[in-house]
Amino acid sequence: MEPISSTDNPHVRLLRALQDARGRARHRAFLVEGVRLVETAALAARPRVALHAPRFGAADGREAALLRRLADAGAEVRAVTERVLAHVSDTVTPQGIVAAVPLPEPVPDQAPTLAVVLDGIGDPGNAGTLLRTAAAVGVERLLCAPQTVDVYAPKVVRAAAGAHFAVEIRSASAWADVTAALASVEQVVLADARVSRRYWDVDWSKRSALIVSNEAHGASAGAREIATTHVGVPMAPGIESLNAAVAGSVILYEALRQRISARETETER
Amino acid sequence: MEPISSTDNPHVRLLRALQDARGRARHRAFLVEGVRLVETAALAARPRVALHAPRFGAADGREAALLRRLADAGAEVRAVTERVLAHVSDTVTPQGIVAAVPLPEPVPDQAPTLAVVLDGIGDPGNAGTLLRTAAAVGVERLLCAPQTVDVYAPKVVRAAAGAHFAVEIRSASAWADVTAALASVEQVVLADARVSRRYWDVDWSKRSALIVSNEAHGASAGAREIATTHVGVPMAPGIESLNAAVAGSVILYEALRQRISARETETER
Repeated sequence: MEPISSTDNPHVRLLRALQDARGRARHRAFLVEGVRLVETAALAARPRVALHAPRFGAADGREAALLRRLADAGAEVRAVTERVLAHVSDTVTPQGIVAAVPLPEPVPDQAPTLAVVLDGIGDPGNAGTLLRTAAAVGVERLLCAPQTVDVYAPKVVRAAAGAHFAVEIRSASAWADVTAALASVEQVVLADARVSRRYWDVDWSKRSALIVSNEAHGASAGAREIATTHVGVPMAPGIESLNAAVAGSVILYEALRQRISARETETER
Repeated sequence: MEPISSTDNPHVRLLRALQDARGRARHRAFLVEGVRLVETAALAARPRVALHAPRFGAADGREAALLRRLADAGAEVRAVTERVLAHVSDTVTPQGIVAAVPLPEPVPDQAPTLAVVLDGIGDPGNAGTLLRTAAAVGVERLLCAPQTVDVYAPKVVRAAAGAHFAVEIRSASAWADVTAALASVEQVVLADARVSRRYWDVDWSKRSALIVSNEAHGASAGAREIATTHVGVPMAPGIESLNAAVAGSVILYEALRQRISARETETER
């Protein structure tokens, strides 16, 4: 079969539409690019459509196996010309394959032991990096509070490196939804550069939520209202702030450190 | 005086040349953009030339004060047209002011208590973010091992948010130079995803260096050779890796946490 060469092809139009939030909402799907991410998507979700470069899978066992797995899972798998691949891809150098993956369905409510709230995080790289760290420390729920970047945007998906398939993600259009989603947590910890209480002086063995706020504007009124504890990240004199993804990640890893240490102390007894 | 409108103007040519490594090496200077970063540069170094948008400083006290401070410090301060500003700027949306700042002179050797080695870090954002965290935790020396991105590239400078003026930076063209610069440290800790020893089980009160390796290729042969301790960052099952800047930052903050805690235990005695 000839590679698809028209940008009017319905599969091509679908994938292209997923580059913006309206298209993602209409088609209830998001764009996943590159071998590794599409592999993760094929294991965790059911990609609907996958478009690949003409020679993709022809001489590479890993690529060929991925195309078979996608087809077995019921995806439409089609070769497209390099020009069409560039048209649907969000990256400057397309990585050979892109797929349309359904947005996750709501899951039955389970009380998270650790949750993260993105409070107006605007930078896609920071949002994706926070999501990636959240998955690594075992955060069960990530809440996108109002004014936060759409976490299904292609740049966020790339930075998160597969974490979209490991953490339950909820978008909250109002802070009341955030409060409702955190009903079971014992403490809501707000990271705030100006606070002197250190993040490691919090007892992270409790059911907790961590709020990470906007890089430039700091915590929103909604975040301040629901926070029960404020913590700061100590910095050397003269240093004003950290990258938001770094600050959030440092705190999440302290939570993991405390939890693993507590578990091991328990076992030793 | 009319704003400079020609890209052939020598000041304009100087700043433009600083966008690439060869120009920075020839002129022994680097490019700093935006009000906040140029303010930091004007406090910590002696910018040679500052070019600003026509209306910059006209109606804003902070901007006007910055122009005065630059002139007082001996910098050539000139208005340029928006087109010329875009020409010298590395950003899509120029931030009103750019300056040529001299590369720091070598400082008398002082034994660092905490050093960081960038081992082939290729992503400018990651290198800058690591440098920013290094400054925040009080790292005294940052070493750029072979294959590492030029930390004076504009994207690194932006991500580091002023940290270039807070940490001693050395570029090592060979691993022997790295070894020499770490002669006084007691342990060289290599972060390696595959190692089970946890980074918090290291005694960070010792004089230490942390090696953070390339995002995709892992530790280089040179890094493995000089490492005395290998540590991993624990991750949830199924998660393969963290962002390199996050992994490095998380470990650096554990070093700070241990050092502050030890200091306070000492004081309490």
